[in-house]
Amino acid sequence: MRFLKLVLEYDGSGFHGFQKQTGTGLRTVQEVLENALKNLTGEEIQVHGAGRTDAGVHALGQVVHFATSASIPASRFPAALNGCLPPDLVVLRAEEVDPSFHARYSALAKKYCYVVWNQEKPSALLRNYCFHYPVPLDAGLMSKGAAFFEGVHDFRSFSASGSSAKTTTRHLFSFKVQRKRGFVVFTVTADGFLYKMVRLMVGTLLEVGRGKLLPEAVREILETRRRGLGGPAAPPQGLYLVRVYYPGDYIDDRDLWEIESSPYFSLLFS
Amino acid sequence: MRFLKLVLEYDGSGFHGFQKQTGTGLRTVQEVLENALKNLTGEEIQVHGAGRTDAGVHALGQVVHFATSASIPASRFPAALNGCLPPDLVVLRAEEVDPSFHARYSALAKKYCYVVWNQEKPSALLRNYCFHYPVPLDAGLMSKGAAFFEGVHDFRSFSASGSSAKTTTRHLFSFKVQRKRGFVVFTVTADGFLYKMVRLMVGTLLEVGRGKLLPEAVREILETRRRGLGGPAAPPQGLYLVRVYYPGDYIDDRDLWEIESSPYFSLLFS
Repeated sequence: MRFLKLVLEYDGSGFHGFQKQTGTGLRTVQEVLENALKNLTGEEIQVHGAGRTDAGVHALGQVVHFATSASIPASRFPAALNGCLPPDLVVLRAEEVDPSFHARYSALAKKYCYVVWNQEKPSALLRNYCFHYPVPLDAGLMSKGAAFFEGVHDFRSFSASGSSAKTTTRHLFSFKVQRKRGFVVFTVTADGFLYKMVRLMVGTLLEVGRGKLLPEAVREILETRRRGLGGPAAPPQGLYLVRVYYPGDYIDDRDLWEIESSPYFSLLFS
Repeated sequence: MRFLKLVLEYDGSGFHGFQKQTGTGLRTVQEVLENALKNLTGEEIQVHGAGRTDAGVHALGQVVHFATSASIPASRFPAALNGCLPPDLVVLRAEEVDPSFHARYSALAKKYCYVVWNQEKPSALLRNYCFHYPVPLDAGLMSKGAAFFEGVHDFRSFSASGSSAKTTTRHLFSFKVQRKRGFVVFTVTADGFLYKMVRLMVGTLLEVGRGKLLPEAVREILETRRRGLGGPAAPPQGLYLVRVYYPGDYIDDRDLWEIESSPYFSLLFS
């Protein structure tokens, strides 16, 4: 038995999220990937993902692992598997890992990015890849608000019910807000995220950016440990799982567009 | 009767081209736009487009004109009409024009852009917005080849049959090839284009870029005035109608990413 780790890019527009939903007939990343692995190896393979992205959420660096008896070398796995996958799901890299590696439990941190299209007119070409927010936003105020999220906090106020997490305390390493031409890009790295946490934090920062909340409201809402006090969750199509960090990876907090190997973002925000 | 000019952005992925195909049931830009105009004004309006983009081809600045009796001010037309349009077709601007204005016949020039994703691995997120070409390309050789297209030439060798054009001579003002990170971007401006001309020119330059043709082959193929000697037409999803120029507009040949007002490209290649 061998153990493989894959790094995936996908366009979330056509998927009902990452996690398999047996019996529903809904197309999910896990199911499409497991079907392709069966076609390639002949085996019934169960994959384990680093994070369960919701319907419409994209990934530039989702990570999965699985066990296989197939002898295909890791270096040839991406091309072989991409031949069995639809074009909205691509394997970027593959490597053999230790049996102790687990895509989810070995992860030290994850980086998400949220992209807001902050212009009056919507964009036809970017409609599934950004959240169109026509009200002018003050990136400086949002940066001030975002700073209150950094550090170790109980993020219960910024979680949705339905999470199975044992604790709602997380260590948030970095939360940057930057204007790039007509866009506002939120980049956040933490040791883990609660259900809908990024979208709820961004939704609250948007209220700060338009002047409906003060930046200090972020700290106050965090301290209440009560849901529903911040802004509504920002919609899924602006959200990207950018990278999952494992032991040995360097966790930096430089800006997304300076570091990401992902071609998509290196283009978008160069 | 008033005459209005609209500037449109659309995602070509979901359209069978610009032109209405009556009785086929195929979704086209013209048909969707005319239906929205009917919903908004109650009138049967026929729109006239500057160029007939093929299925899969995108537009950042397609132009149409039409006559209407509706009294909606031009400044409020985009928002009103966008409310009747699907999200993959957006009206960016509207202005009242003289009865003598014709989106196609008044046009002095058009600018197209072709985007190649020149990396080994495909991109899930960009699959409908670039042509994935994994073979390494030499942008310097392609620039040399592109220069032979500039000027007044008979472009018959770079046209597909099925064109209704009276003459195959065109004035090509500028043809730039530039590498932007993992991408190669072709930007071409001319007083008009024959059917499939941009895609046939790009297809030939790709053969130059990979070393299968010399840059000088472009001049030789032009001179034969015979079809089928260059590379195959590049596929539609990499092509964008960027801008249509009319009397009074300044036709420059600066690089696309320095000039375009289009938010999409100002982001993509900033």
